[in-house]
Amino acid sequence: MMLEANIDDMNPEIYGYVMEKAFKLGALDVFMTPIIMKKNRPGIKLSVLCEQEKQEELEKLVLTETTTLGLRKYEVDRTILKRQSVKLKTKYGVVSMKLGYMGGKPVKLAPEFEECREIAEGFGIPIPQVYEDLVYAAKKYFEAIQEK
Amino acid sequence: MMLEANIDDMNPEIYGYVMEKAFKLGALDVFMTPIIMKKNRPGIKLSVLCEQEKQEELEKLVLTETTTLGLRKYEVDRTILKRQSVKLKTKYGVVSMKLGYMGGKPVKLAPEFEECREIAEGFGIPIPQVYEDLVYAAKKYFEAIQEK
Amino acid sequence: MMLEANIDDMNPEIYGYVMEKAFKLGALDVFMTPIIMKKNRPGIKLSVLCEQEKQEELEKLVLTETTTLGLRKYEVDRTILKRQSVKLKTKYGVVSMKLGYMGGKPVKLAPEFEECREIAEGFGIPIPQVYEDLVYAAKKYFEAIQEK
Amino acid sequence: MMLEANIDDMNPEIYGYVMEKAFKLGALDVFMTPIIMKKNRPGIKLSVLCEQEKQEELEKLVLTETTTLGLRKYEVDRTILKRQSVKLKTKYGVVSMKLGYMGGKPVKLAPEFEECREIAEGFGIPIPQVYEDLVYAAKKYFEAIQEK
Amino acid sequence: MMLEANIDDMNPEIYGYVMEKAFKLGALDVFMTPIIMKKNRPGIKLSVLCEQEKQEELEKLVLTETTTLGLRKYEVDRTILKRQSVKLKTKYGVVSMKLGYMGGKPVKLAPEFEECREIAEGFGIPIPQVYEDLVYAAKKYFEAIQEK
Amino acid sequence: MMLEANIDDMNPEIYGYVMEKAFKLGALDVFMTPIIMKKNRPGIKLSVLCEQEKQEELEKLVLTETTTLGLRKYEVDRTILKRQSVKLKTKYGVVSMKLGYMGGKPVKLAPEFEECREIAEGFGIPIPQVYEDLVYAAKKYFEAIQEK
Repeated sequence: MMLEANIDDMNPEIYGYVMEKAFKLGALDVFMTPIIMKKNRPGIKLSVLCEQEKQEELEKLVLTETTTLGLRKYEVDRTILKRQSVKLKTKYGVVSMKLGYMGGKPVKLAPEFEECREIAEGFGIPIPQVYEDLVYAAKKYFEAIQEK
Repeated sequence: MMLEANIDDMNPEIYGYVMEKAFKLGALDVFMTPIIMKKNRPGIKLSVLCEQEKQEELEKLVLTETTTLGLRKYEVDRTILKRQSVKLKTKYGVVSMKLGYMGGKPVKLAPEFEECREIAEGFGIPIPQVYEDLVYAAKKYFEAIQEK
Repeated sequence: MMLEANIDDMNPEIYGYVMEKAFKLGALDVFMTPIIMKKNRPGIKLSVLCEQEKQEELEKLVLTETTTLGLRKYEVDRTILKRQSVKLKTKYGVVSMKLGYMGGKPVKLAPEFEECREIAEGFGIPIPQVYEDLVYAAKKYFEAIQEK
Repeated sequence: MMLEANIDDMNPEIYGYVMEKAFKLGALDVFMTPIIMKKNRPGIKLSVLCEQEKQEELEKLVLTETTTLGLRKYEVDRTILKRQSVKLKTKYGVVSMKLGYMGGKPVKLAPEFEECREIAEGFGIPIPQVYEDLVYAAKKYFEAIQEK
Repeated sequence: MMLEANIDDMNPEIYGYVMEKAFKLGALDVFMTPIIMKKNRPGIKLSVLCEQEKQEELEKLVLTETTTLGLRKYEVDRTILKRQSVKLKTKYGVVSMKLGYMGGKPVKLAPEFEECREIAEGFGIPIPQVYEDLVYAAKKYFEAIQEK
Repeated sequence: MMLEANIDDMNPEIYGYVMEKAFKLGALDVFMTPIIMKKNRPGIKLSVLCEQEKQEELEKLVLTETTTLGLRKYEVDRTILKRQSVKLKTKYGVVSMKLGYMGGKPVKLAPEFEECREIAEGFGIPIPQVYEDLVYAAKKYFEAIQEK
């Protein structure tokens, strides 16, 4: 389900908190879109994607933790690549990567960003360089598993 | 129903007029989202939310009063808190508030913004202060009715 | 002068009121830009363009009528086409047009939007058609004055 | 069908390429919406509108040519004005116009933008003027066919 | 100084990290604006506001930790309300508030958002309610100090 | 110089053309920012960055090729990494890379996107993979030249 609420009367400091709470309750995704509402009001469309069994709880969250008096919702289907988390040995140590499969074949491999961040901080290296290094490590591993 | 049209060839001065007309025809909500369309065109997604019985008239409005040659639409459900308008005596006189109920219990109370604006103009007081004063009056009333 | 304040803790209903007040105090332009601030806060950059002699009053407005605790400012120069308002006889009656000159020559002529709106409402004609009709009337007049 | 993917980990240079490819594969529309995702990430919602028979191919495109590991989708209906391309003789030569019908009656006529662009470049005339000239030519032709 | 870089070729996951680092190095403010760049690229303008003595270090940060090959910068003046942090006793315990003065007089008082968040989590109360409660406590204290 | 115009009355199809023309005339950068103007108008701030000797010509372009009746401008300084274009042999053939130096040392190397696009099209390979392959080739070359 996709739940959406247009909000034009809430202190924006609150959004970060609501997003976190929605993720904790099991939302699949939470995001905000800047919109323009009546009377020159710069509003936010808050979107919460979830499985049907989480819908009730997440609706309640949106209606309780924001100022909105209502929300709308519609069903969406999803196409999700089969995913796997793999551990890879890199020059920075063992790092987690997310691996995506399409039609049984591995097609994507990307570093977990939070680990890039930790490495950048720990080693004092610019983060784009860390990211590239891990993409490179991923790439080599990826080519190996694709060949199989 | 949610009606949506991506518009990339219209003088933006026209949107305010179209929004007003849509509200007059009974739209539940009307809003605009900045989008990026092909060929570097900064477009606008115009969204009109309405009951099914208003759909035909509002489709006609969008197709007549904007430059678009088509629109898309999909059904949405809504969860709406039961609302009530209450009059509250405040230090600025009697003011309207919107009150929202969840599960039969009052859970939200907020001042009508247009009345904040009139008070701010009439009394010559900064609007954030007026708003806070009314939230405060609402809060006290709200606590009283919650206790019952 | 350009005055700018990043605001992430204000009820968005308030912006329309502040914009109007700024224009009344003599601002040359007032606009809002959606921005992304720290901690996932969807903020608004409020921009007020004004002559230097209005700066003090407009700074005070921003600091009083919004929640911000500060603003920044920098000088901007402007290149403005010489403008004139001309009255034109059209099939809808006499209409105001804004005329722009570059290097002494008329180069632009456009209808005043508020009059388009009134005509559309009064005559019950779609606004894009009214706008086009007025652009057409403007165009004919414009060609005549350019030839002189 | 509307296909949507929220993307927060892709080099933005890639979007233009993906859009073009999607149009080539038969997408009815492709557009991007700036969104705000978790952890202060400025993401992009990529939207691809298509007929059901193109869905599978376009899903594959999005999953292959972007970094996303999934997408969501929902059915949308469309109301499309009957369209026709007409050739019009103008002072710049013969130009294509798109004509829209509502209820059997012609209601809209607009120049094809790419031809405006070519004329502006070829004749060395400001493009707003070319556009207005073509709107004017369209308008005259349009009034003629409406009277019939 | 205001430092600005338009970035169209960086993984958006990186921005949150760069913002944090910029704040740690002493930036006064850091924010992102969605922009549209050539070739249909949805870019981000990264803005870093800082005192002149921090400029060099922050320039280096932007040039090192992002993919940009350059940045632009201009001087801005600032008007900042004199601020004070005050501790207030509320029904949730002692809470920090930020107090702003204009012309020697207290004109603004707002709760520190992070403490609202902690209270909401700790007490299990909806955050808009906590926020309102603290605004209310602030308001009462504020009226008391204004009267003096 | 930074030239800026807020535009709220122009057909958005025109922007792509104006951007291209501005780049041809020597603009250093051209970009658009979605803004919210008075009367609920979703406008665009058009920004043109240029050297002072190009300013007059680019001002004229903005005033001629858009509907604006004025623009504002302010000086900006720039910090630009020394850049070099290098040719690299990759498995897809010889490819151009942009190389950036800070303090005499090479610090950045990135593929020219247009060549990624050509390779993706020519070889029929997903563009993220091409991009990664070229980043990898760049990275190896880069490490070699850094070691010197």
